[in-house]
Amino acid sequence: MAKELDGFKFEQRHGKAKVRVGRVWRSKDGRRHFMVEWKVNISLLSNCVAAYVRDDNSDIVATDTMKNTVYVKAKECSEPLSAEEFAIILGKHFTSFYPQVFTAIVKVVEKPWERVSVNGQPHEHGFKLGSDKHVVEAIVQKSGILQLTSSIEGLALLKTTKSGFEGFIRDKYTALPETRERMLATEVTASWRYSYESVSSIPQNPLYFNDRHLNVRQVLADTFFGPPEGGVYSASVQSTLFQMAKAVLSRFTDISSVKLKMPNIHFLPVNLSSEDNGNIVKFNDDVYHPTDEPHGSIEASLSRFWSKM
Amino acid sequence: MAKELDGFKFEQRHGKAKVRVGRVWRSKDGRRHFMVEWKVNISLLSNCVAAYVRDDNSDIVATDTMKNTVYVKAKECSEPLSAEEFAIILGKHFTSFYPQVFTAIVKVVEKPWERVSVNGQPHEHGFKLGSDKHVVEAIVQKSGILQLTSSIEGLALLKTTKSGFEGFIRDKYTALPETRERMLATEVTASWRYSYESVSSIPQNPLYFNDRHLNVRQVLADTFFGPPEGGVYSASVQSTLFQMAKAVLSRFTDISSVKLKMPNIHFLPVNLSSEDNGNIVKFNDDVYHPTDEPHGSIEASLSRFWSKM
Amino acid sequence: MAKELDGFKFEQRHGKAKVRVGRVWRSKDGRRHFMVEWKVNISLLSNCVAAYVRDDNSDIVATDTMKNTVYVKAKECSEPLSAEEFAIILGKHFTSFYPQVFTAIVKVVEKPWERVSVNGQPHEHGFKLGSDKHVVEAIVQKSGILQLTSSIEGLALLKTTKSGFEGFIRDKYTALPETRERMLATEVTASWRYSYESVSSIPQNPLYFNDRHLNVRQVLADTFFGPPEGGVYSASVQSTLFQMAKAVLSRFTDISSVKLKMPNIHFLPVNLSSEDNGNIVKFNDDVYHPTDEPHGSIEASLSRFWSKM
Amino acid sequence: MAKELDGFKFEQRHGKAKVRVGRVWRSKDGRRHFMVEWKVNISLLSNCVAAYVRDDNSDIVATDTMKNTVYVKAKECSEPLSAEEFAIILGKHFTSFYPQVFTAIVKVVEKPWERVSVNGQPHEHGFKLGSDKHVVEAIVQKSGILQLTSSIEGLALLKTTKSGFEGFIRDKYTALPETRERMLATEVTASWRYSYESVSSIPQNPLYFNDRHLNVRQVLADTFFGPPEGGVYSASVQSTLFQMAKAVLSRFTDISSVKLKMPNIHFLPVNLSSEDNGNIVKFNDDVYHPTDEPHGSIEASLSRFWSKM
Repeated sequence: MAKELDGFKFEQRHGKAKVRVGRVWRSKDGRRHFMVEWKVNISLLSNCVAAYVRDDNSDIVATDTMKNTVYVKAKECSEPLSAEEFAIILGKHFTSFYPQVFTAIVKVVEKPWERVSVNGQPHEHGFKLGSDKHVVEAIVQKSGILQLTSSIEGLALLKTTKSGFEGFIRDKYTALPETRERMLATEVTASWRYSYESVSSIPQNPLYFNDRHLNVRQVLADTFFGPPEGGVYSASVQSTLFQMAKAVLSRFTDISSVKLKMPNIHFLPVNLSSEDNGNIVKFNDDVYHPTDEPHGSIEASLSRFWSKM
Repeated sequence: MAKELDGFKFEQRHGKAKVRVGRVWRSKDGRRHFMVEWKVNISLLSNCVAAYVRDDNSDIVATDTMKNTVYVKAKECSEPLSAEEFAIILGKHFTSFYPQVFTAIVKVVEKPWERVSVNGQPHEHGFKLGSDKHVVEAIVQKSGILQLTSSIEGLALLKTTKSGFEGFIRDKYTALPETRERMLATEVTASWRYSYESVSSIPQNPLYFNDRHLNVRQVLADTFFGPPEGGVYSASVQSTLFQMAKAVLSRFTDISSVKLKMPNIHFLPVNLSSEDNGNIVKFNDDVYHPTDEPHGSIEASLSRFWSKM
Repeated sequence: MAKELDGFKFEQRHGKAKVRVGRVWRSKDGRRHFMVEWKVNISLLSNCVAAYVRDDNSDIVATDTMKNTVYVKAKECSEPLSAEEFAIILGKHFTSFYPQVFTAIVKVVEKPWERVSVNGQPHEHGFKLGSDKHVVEAIVQKSGILQLTSSIEGLALLKTTKSGFEGFIRDKYTALPETRERMLATEVTASWRYSYESVSSIPQNPLYFNDRHLNVRQVLADTFFGPPEGGVYSASVQSTLFQMAKAVLSRFTDISSVKLKMPNIHFLPVNLSSEDNGNIVKFNDDVYHPTDEPHGSIEASLSRFWSKM
Repeated sequence: MAKELDGFKFEQRHGKAKVRVGRVWRSKDGRRHFMVEWKVNISLLSNCVAAYVRDDNSDIVATDTMKNTVYVKAKECSEPLSAEEFAIILGKHFTSFYPQVFTAIVKVVEKPWERVSVNGQPHEHGFKLGSDKHVVEAIVQKSGILQLTSSIEGLALLKTTKSGFEGFIRDKYTALPETRERMLATEVTASWRYSYESVSSIPQNPLYFNDRHLNVRQVLADTFFGPPEGGVYSASVQSTLFQMAKAVLSRFTDISSVKLKMPNIHFLPVNLSSEDNGNIVKFNDDVYHPTDEPHGSIEASLSRFWSKM
């Protein structure tokens, strides 16, 4: 939504980042508790250019006000709900309450608090932090048009065999040997766009998107690893990534596109040699030097035809 | 460069991230040294879909090969050069050497090593790490078309007065008081696009872009702070950001657009009260609680007409 | 082991930090894989003062040599073993192989890779990263004397009720209200010293310390949370910490001391007010502002009499 | 200050960590501003065991009260002062105000805000963030006994020549070649203990320790680099570290001991080879692979006789 200003093209947004909110809900008898911890980023596209050029703040929603709104809206949610639902609620509020605001971009990062078990029984009010993160972005227009994206960040997966890399281009810069036996380690960032195109069309169940999130996660991991006995051969990170993306779109009809980033985190086979001793010891695909710097970076997106990501 | 695949739309890229390289150059007599430390990210857009769908890697440039290329090209640079120049050299190489590669996206992060002085004299071979970072992205097409962006990251600036925020929207979610006296702190991320549109049109001087970088940094800081005596009043982060962006475009004619992200890092005036004692002490714009969570997020871009960023 | 040098007292150590090693073991039929990823820090106390004062390196074990040793020793371990065992093996090596070295301090951080399940069945060679870390420190003397410490780092626990804080000192700096109802969140760092005092006295089972580690973790969490129904009231972080420490020493007779650090990570009840509107909304222990800055810091150690930690 | 408890030995402390405070002072005419940003950690050793064992908090200083105290004491400091002075003021307060508290350990981390210049003139109220950090720890006893330590953290230094490493132990684990020409890079952590042994004996000038800090930093860097022309040869990190420590003690008579940690951050000379092409290119001490994992770790302390660190 660019403007012309003094002969320049101008685009702007403002918002509040890292608004941290915890929300606890209790069952009727008060004994069983549900909780979430969210970090909310709000960014508003609005008509407030006067603040930039004429020191006139009369169209500015103060970012402190946005922060307060997060707390009030969290309070108003009287039942447990997904981060997706909460992001949409905020987006609807900002675009409907303020005439100046035409688009709200709301990102929510949910901390992976998981209910603990004690003596094999789920605890009423005890939670422990898990590993990978659930991230949500809702872009809401004043008209109610919605773009809803969910993500998994930090899903670190590794398999110790059934991975190779052969037949790639060899030229004068190439030193990497071909192999049919290597470690494969990655930290998946997966994001997927839902096909719901307006805030009024999303499913009624306030925890619907939490289930979806867990299911997508499962499909991604299962495709990466293959059967518990024997696994599945990976001819490249590219090939495995494509299988994973296809599995998500095949399985979930309300997902219109999926994007995967899968860095190739190298476990280099150790191979020591010295001018004094020749090879120090014979290594044989058993000892590795893991390293993050550098790492391969492979990413791709797969979409149902002509949807946009 | 989307493909159709099995009825889906498919887009992909692959590359090598975090290739760290140090490069030292020596003067003719060997005494005066120049050095840089770069972290290089390469991402190639290329025709290699067979690797994803048919386990055929014959069109894949191995990411290990990309890493080696960084070292070889660094060696071939016999004179000191800017990170911008190096990114373009790499981009030209990948798009011309490999028929499959149609676009190379090369990002270089330069560590802020600065020559030290000892006894007031610049040292021949001693360096110390400074603070903010110089980041470069060159997108090079096989045709030679270039998009060149430079950035400053982590430029933390603060002024203790001459800042206020008044006249914004007040509603039932608003608690923030108006003020003409507050701290203003931010960590600027500035990126600007150069107007050179092909690799053959960039300036000859291999350190040209280093000078530009320092000059843009100076203009940004000087505009933020105003004159050493009296400074300049900031009516909002928005207003100050706009002045900074305009100053860059006004001053540097080969910059076609500039984008600024300026989080409002709050220094909240301390104001303690207790049920036992009422106000504990009278604070008066002298003691602050600095916090990063949450922070305001203000960003905008300003472009010469119809250039794209 | 201080020396006198030029009239000064001198102490030194040197080593290699962040040696990352991955180790894979296979079952006889090659199908079932075991793996660990360790980050090893080695620090040697040795007689090598000549390197400091006379540029004579003849008593220096190069840190690169230490790194190689990690890989060779990992190779020599033909069966899966705990990080504790590996740290002791390295410590024994350095103190016995080099006459100059009288003490080796070996720290190992194990990444929490966990075997995945697919379709409810443990996978032969698939692993996923969990959350909290297992850290080990072995201090080995040339004589074989051993100090062995295990730690859990990053065990984030939270309960939404059954926590209060009352009856503390009230003075003119006190603003905190008393309460019997608050969130309690912490990130436990627990370290415990084993009673084995020589390398020859440790248990034979090479995975013994892994079991211990899991058991201690369970006891800490169970004591923190209390029964799944009703939980247990915490009168302070101090009180809960003490219960946890006592439970560890009571349960595990080969642990001679335990040290717990339990930051009080605050979930502040939200309570908004504004000059315009009075209280914006009535919050009621349901919406919280989580924050890490500042946090309470509570730590304590509990030891069987006259052991030292 | 261990206690016996239920047959165990017990030690504890509690406090508040990461209390962030900004303090601004103005010149008489209000135009010239001074500012600091501190992160304060307080830890109290006190008689409050009842809180651990009997849920009796009556001897507990709430950590929220400690936080408030930081703000009140910052307000009471009516003139600019060093982080060392502020740490001592807090330590004196806690040990004298509370009968239960026998020792206060106060750590202050000062953010490196530096006054900017605009048009070559120091700005009245503008500041920019520098690089390395100033850290202080004061341990104050109720009796007034003081241990005062200052530190520099994150001082990254690098020289491109005049460094070697020869004559070290060669054995079957050794692969490192000897050299008289390498890069030398480190990130110095330096801490030094002042000889002032009571709170009443420290220098009167409230900025005394700031000057000392800058001077020590200068001596460390100058010794590391040597003269601007020619520099100074380093036979090992050990040797250079010892020269630096000795220079500090020789120059500053009120420093009783100094401890240096100098990781050897490797810039590995690049040397590519491939099975296809032999050596890809001839490198010659000009292109390096910088890496943090692993790094050498060298540390030592030097003390005037019989002082303790």
